[in-house]
Amino acid sequence: MGELLGVAVLGAGHMGADHIRRLDRVVNGARVVAVADPDRDRAEEAVGGIEGVRVHDDPLAALDAPGVRAVLIASPGPAHEEALLAAFGRGLPVLCEKPMAPESDGALRVVEAEARLGRRLAQIGFMRRYDSGYLELKSLLDGGRLGRPLMLHCTHRNVSSPPGFTSAMLINSSVSHEIDAARWLLGQELTAVTVLRPASSSGAPEGLVDPQFVLFETERGALVDVEVFVNCGFGYQVRCEAVGEAGSARIGEEHGTVVTAGGAASAPVPQDYLVRFAAAYDREVQSWVDATRRGRVTGPSAWDGYASSVAAEAGVRSLENGGRVGITLAERPPLYAEDGGDGAR
Amino acid sequence: MGELLGVAVLGAGHMGADHIRRLDRVVNGARVVAVADPDRDRAEEAVGGIEGVRVHDDPLAALDAPGVRAVLIASPGPAHEEALLAAFGRGLPVLCEKPMAPESDGALRVVEAEARLGRRLAQIGFMRRYDSGYLELKSLLDGGRLGRPLMLHCTHRNVSSPPGFTSAMLINSSVSHEIDAARWLLGQELTAVTVLRPASSSGAPEGLVDPQFVLFETERGALVDVEVFVNCGFGYQVRCEAVGEAGSARIGEEHGTVVTAGGAASAPVPQDYLVRFAAAYDREVQSWVDATRRGRVTGPSAWDGYASSVAAEAGVRSLENGGRVGITLAERPPLYAEDGGDGAR
Amino acid sequence: MGELLGVAVLGAGHMGADHIRRLDRVVNGARVVAVADPDRDRAEEAVGGIEGVRVHDDPLAALDAPGVRAVLIASPGPAHEEALLAAFGRGLPVLCEKPMAPESDGALRVVEAEARLGRRLAQIGFMRRYDSGYLELKSLLDGGRLGRPLMLHCTHRNVSSPPGFTSAMLINSSVSHEIDAARWLLGQELTAVTVLRPASSSGAPEGLVDPQFVLFETERGALVDVEVFVNCGFGYQVRCEAVGEAGSARIGEEHGTVVTAGGAASAPVPQDYLVRFAAAYDREVQSWVDATRRGRVTGPSAWDGYASSVAAEAGVRSLENGGRVGITLAERPPLYAEDGGDGAR
Amino acid sequence: MGELLGVAVLGAGHMGADHIRRLDRVVNGARVVAVADPDRDRAEEAVGGIEGVRVHDDPLAALDAPGVRAVLIASPGPAHEEALLAAFGRGLPVLCEKPMAPESDGALRVVEAEARLGRRLAQIGFMRRYDSGYLELKSLLDGGRLGRPLMLHCTHRNVSSPPGFTSAMLINSSVSHEIDAARWLLGQELTAVTVLRPASSSGAPEGLVDPQFVLFETERGALVDVEVFVNCGFGYQVRCEAVGEAGSARIGEEHGTVVTAGGAASAPVPQDYLVRFAAAYDREVQSWVDATRRGRVTGPSAWDGYASSVAAEAGVRSLENGGRVGITLAERPPLYAEDGGDGAR
Repeated sequence: MGELLGVAVLGAGHMGADHIRRLDRVVNGARVVAVADPDRDRAEEAVGGIEGVRVHDDPLAALDAPGVRAVLIASPGPAHEEALLAAFGRGLPVLCEKPMAPESDGALRVVEAEARLGRRLAQIGFMRRYDSGYLELKSLLDGGRLGRPLMLHCTHRNVSSPPGFTSAMLINSSVSHEIDAARWLLGQELTAVTVLRPASSSGAPEGLVDPQFVLFETERGALVDVEVFVNCGFGYQVRCEAVGEAGSARIGEEHGTVVTAGGAASAPVPQDYLVRFAAAYDREVQSWVDATRRGRVTGPSAWDGYASSVAAEAGVRSLENGGRVGITLAERPPLYAEDGGDGAR
Repeated sequence: MGELLGVAVLGAGHMGADHIRRLDRVVNGARVVAVADPDRDRAEEAVGGIEGVRVHDDPLAALDAPGVRAVLIASPGPAHEEALLAAFGRGLPVLCEKPMAPESDGALRVVEAEARLGRRLAQIGFMRRYDSGYLELKSLLDGGRLGRPLMLHCTHRNVSSPPGFTSAMLINSSVSHEIDAARWLLGQELTAVTVLRPASSSGAPEGLVDPQFVLFETERGALVDVEVFVNCGFGYQVRCEAVGEAGSARIGEEHGTVVTAGGAASAPVPQDYLVRFAAAYDREVQSWVDATRRGRVTGPSAWDGYASSVAAEAGVRSLENGGRVGITLAERPPLYAEDGGDGAR
Repeated sequence: MGELLGVAVLGAGHMGADHIRRLDRVVNGARVVAVADPDRDRAEEAVGGIEGVRVHDDPLAALDAPGVRAVLIASPGPAHEEALLAAFGRGLPVLCEKPMAPESDGALRVVEAEARLGRRLAQIGFMRRYDSGYLELKSLLDGGRLGRPLMLHCTHRNVSSPPGFTSAMLINSSVSHEIDAARWLLGQELTAVTVLRPASSSGAPEGLVDPQFVLFETERGALVDVEVFVNCGFGYQVRCEAVGEAGSARIGEEHGTVVTAGGAASAPVPQDYLVRFAAAYDREVQSWVDATRRGRVTGPSAWDGYASSVAAEAGVRSLENGGRVGITLAERPPLYAEDGGDGAR
Repeated sequence: MGELLGVAVLGAGHMGADHIRRLDRVVNGARVVAVADPDRDRAEEAVGGIEGVRVHDDPLAALDAPGVRAVLIASPGPAHEEALLAAFGRGLPVLCEKPMAPESDGALRVVEAEARLGRRLAQIGFMRRYDSGYLELKSLLDGGRLGRPLMLHCTHRNVSSPPGFTSAMLINSSVSHEIDAARWLLGQELTAVTVLRPASSSGAPEGLVDPQFVLFETERGALVDVEVFVNCGFGYQVRCEAVGEAGSARIGEEHGTVVTAGGAASAPVPQDYLVRFAAAYDREVQSWVDATRRGRVTGPSAWDGYASSVAAEAGVRSLENGGRVGITLAERPPLYAEDGGDGAR
């Protein structure tokens, strides 16, 4: 398929290093040509001797390195806006990890900049759209087999939360995945959110509101409920049941090998999202590389990044204030009219 | 185990006829000695030639018939209060179908009458407490294996609603089962309820708010959510997942025979609660007969009937008004102190 | 349904005591009136104060006790033939635990005696025909949904074998259930058997050939394979998959409550056949009581007991000699023509 | 990871074309540089405009094309031996589709040639070793969690067989996968085989013996049974249950999305091995490319190809003659001592 796509990776932390490995050793058709991280040693370690990669501490220098034809942004959220605008300025296609921006204001500026450009360059890293289960559910919903969708019941559980995780991050870091998935699966914008607080688990750090139970309403009356529980202790579980007028479908109950021993039949529960969604990450980056080499931009758009950001902010307000909070979006630029949160296939 | 327990059955409709059959042909240790129904022909048909049964049109006459040592009330809800009080007046143990009374005022009068009597005579027909799945879940929760309970996720789906079913009946006829089950499983009273209205299914009769999504809060901070959907079209499904600090457990996913044919592996979904809960009804009545013959009263109490009735009324107000409605109970008489909604084993 | 059926129970060991309890406290329409056991103390203990029961040490005396209208034989196998013939001589309906007779010679004498009598009196205790899973499988096969049956794959596992269990008993005590189930499900006689010996488990007692893998051929070419493993250590598992020209169906994978904790999703495996088949035993005895009170004899016949005995004997020969052994039955008396191994409902 | 691995693909039929696509668009680190097929048009079509690929009708010319550093053999079985020997002569690493050779004589010549060479160059295409389910089962068995393995129960079902499929091909084309999987999972050679013939399905072509039931014995006494049914009509199912002294484990029951509609809960069954094992094929070729670029040879060896071929031939003799047939291998060259059928990770 011709020349390999030269990619600059911004950020060499946990996620960035994983993407460098993926581009170098898993994905077909791309090669890493530049890596930028303020911590140069970390960047060198992530590169690990891959031939022909230049390491930078300035992201803009990486964008301008020879051979760069696309950008993967895996730096911390506050750095995303500047990097996205710089890529837009150079006409470079971008895959930007979520969140697109830490606040909706910044997200809206990205949307407006791309709209001014008049063509899409950014794909946002909502990788659930590339998970085989979610793809099947999307296909069932779009194919009409379940009838008009009325409810989504979602579960999002982690073994434990990392140090520094706040009550607001259950919404804007964890539930943000369900926000995008719900918008995409239903093809509808969210219109309101209510966050409920069951008793917090004694397994959660002091002061963390965990679990939370989050309710979203959509523009055509569907109801989305999400149990988010980031210190559940037993595993990483992501489940979704869509209930329609004609039937329901569930994903995320997959159990592979069943072992019967010691009086019980049991199946392991994955402990980590990189295990549970490994194939989705691979498929996401492969799709981005394939599309980019063909000169196309598909997948979740900057608008999706913005809409998710607004919904998460409303959720955090509801968590703080206890009531129902409306979700209001800016006017949707025509650039995003066709591809409304879709295009993952 | 000595003489058979002579039972008077009040009401010979769908449920009453089923109980007459059960007492005559399934349950051990009892016999039907009197049946009362205003429609004498219906009563004769339900009796169907069982020897030694007297048919009455007056329920009080049935209570006074020779050989009556216990009463099973399966008449319409509005007739329950009078029948219960009459049974109390005669010192007869009673199994009373739910609802104990159509409104909480009447339910409270029953509670007060039994409290004045100073001993329990009434068991209320919340038969889920006798379902093997619910019993396992109760045992897991009480045994501490799941840790302190934080949430219950419940699903209650029927193929279609009978004629005349109203939006309020989704709460006070259907969800009333979850109300009792939640109080019993958690060993906590409910303190507030909020009813949400997703878009109604086009498969539901015009004007019926179906599905509904009902949220209960409990005195120690657990959250109970219930999807109730009585025109789901595909089957009768009752599921419950308890989420605790140390683990979760689900019931109601049982699938027996798995048939693989025509490109799919499938298991039948029951179409009817009498199929799904057949064994629970048998176990409920058998337990009542066994306890009664030993001079004991166990199972859900009049207090459970009353508390369920108050919660359902609050739910209906929330359905009508749209907001969160508090649930406030009268003071609990000492008679019900020990047996707090338990005793099913 | 009229007067209770008076039953004489022969044998008050583990199984007999359980049947006495079942007739007294579970089953509708019967009462125990006489119990016989050479160990009078054991019989008294099993009766446990049930009113109106006479205890005997001579089984014939129990058959002649006042009020006896039917017999349940739960004495050791070697005593069955005499007890059955005595019941036949008195015209008493019998439910006889398996095996009907320890050897096929004795089983054939029972068949011939009943054939001379010209009417069925005996039902043999193959209780799997009353298990809800097997009943569904039978219904699927008879209804044609799976097409013509080609294979049955069976698993029969016990946690551990009782003291004194021999290699032959894996066939004639354990696999005898699969022998009857296969004949009943397929509606075909077995024509040959081959027993294979995988490496024996170090968890089995020294010298016991365990597991074994048993292959049966049937008169219309179906193949039945059975893994029997009586010291598997982890649970009591009975599974059966029927493979037909149009589909397959499996039973015995039932899992009720699924608990997710400690990194795994698990469901308990029953440890004991009295747990796994509790409802089947209840249904078996209830069906027998109901039919007997109506003057009918249904369920597995003496012919089924005989055919099972011949197949098991052939299996033991194959276990000893290593090769394929043919199964040849005596001519089938016309008495058994219609009801060929069926009639469980 | 340096320069891309230049691969010559021999054979541009169904499988070859799929591998060309995989090397070009899925796998990381390789590129197709030469393709050979006697049908030049077919080869051109399979290449489909990939830049820099030369098309040949002579496989030896393809091996000698510039840039070729490894060979993937996907030509028909009878061409494999010559191609393997030619690759050995040129010192080229090879991935050879199964069967390694149509008959065990040819397979042995390949083994001997590689042994003379003194180093491994060939990996044989037993792709089940790269399926995540089989890998988990292997890991459970090697880790000792199931104890010493006693039995493997296998199922191998296809919707329908292609034209020209013979009764022998159920063994040497279909069961050959289970032969390799059993040897690999157990780490034992097979010592005997018996093929049983249940009644053939009327859904199978006239004269085809389908299904078959195949029994293998191993050197340490494990028993392996395989139901192979290539016209089952309903789907492609590959299942395996390992039974050990301490527990059992099953794979191949995976069900993803569960749809509840129309009175049943159902999950789709894949219709095709390219769907069921798509990820395994990708992983197989990626592993081969990765190892080859590091100068290593892993995965199933020529000895595995030979041993599988001998076992399949014995199976075909048992199918024809009806009895048990011993499996005797040539002496194992020291070259294959260490890596005995393993190395898939």
